[in-house]
Amino acid sequence: MRDAFLQAAIDEAQKGLAQGGIPIGSVLVIDGKIVGRGHNQRVQQGSAILHAEMHCFEQAGRLSPADYKKATLYSTLSPCDMCSGTALLYGIPKIVIGENQTFQGPEAYVRSRGVELSIVQDEECIKMMQDFIAAAPELWFEDIGKI
Amino acid sequence: MRDAFLQAAIDEAQKGLAQGGIPIGSVLVIDGKIVGRGHNQRVQQGSAILHAEMHCFEQAGRLSPADYKKATLYSTLSPCDMCSGTALLYGIPKIVIGENQTFQGPEAYVRSRGVELSIVQDEECIKMMQDFIAAAPELWFEDIGKI
Repeated sequence: MRDAFLQAAIDEAQKGLAQGGIPIGSVLVIDGKIVGRGHNQRVQQGSAILHAEMHCFEQAGRLSPADYKKATLYSTLSPCDMCSGTALLYGIPKIVIGENQTFQGPEAYVRSRGVELSIVQDEECIKMMQDFIAAAPELWFEDIGKI
Repeated sequence: MRDAFLQAAIDEAQKGLAQGGIPIGSVLVIDGKIVGRGHNQRVQQGSAILHAEMHCFEQAGRLSPADYKKATLYSTLSPCDMCSGTALLYGIPKIVIGENQTFQGPEAYVRSRGVELSIVQDEECIKMMQDFIAAAPELWFEDIGKI
């Protein structure tokens, strides 16, 4: 059975897909409760910075440094340089990653900075991204800054 | 005489300060033109992610991967993990930094990824941050996730 928080992140990704967006979702969990949820907003808000994890951090609002330090970030996809950097800025100790088969962020560097990464390789997460990349490769490349 | 683009970033920082915000500013330059401007929005928008550089990237809007690869990012302060990560995501080749005396981001790592960093050590940038940190240390620590 899938972790309820990863499921919540997948629900966010599917919400984004239903809106015509990029299907990546994220939740932030503190003390066993979801304090922020988000999904990629490139299409919906024309945003260059609201990846799912960024949207999730923003929706969680201004938190204290102490709160971040007991948080776990869930994302359906391996966090990119930007989203990994945000987790490092706030000292998030643990990230649960749905999959890193279709894209892999700077995981070795993030681990070297003391963050625990748990890679689930969830089949639904992998299929969501495979289908999306096949359907909209230019949008995907824009989202990860690749030519 | 100060670089006009660094001056534009300082103008952004001062705009933020006049709004009661954190005095850090940024501009993004492509082909000799400013395509985005921003200043820290923690206070003004209650934002956890809109550091000056992030606000600047967002104000620049959705750009093509090719555009980012000829851009220079200017910031009054050494970019933190989040903002450095965003520059890495988009393959920004050069960052001009007003100062890194009051705060230093992951500069060695950013350089190791092939980005050229130019550190100006501008006296006005240093003084803006020294004065701000002395006046509002808790807000500053929140902004950089430090307890």
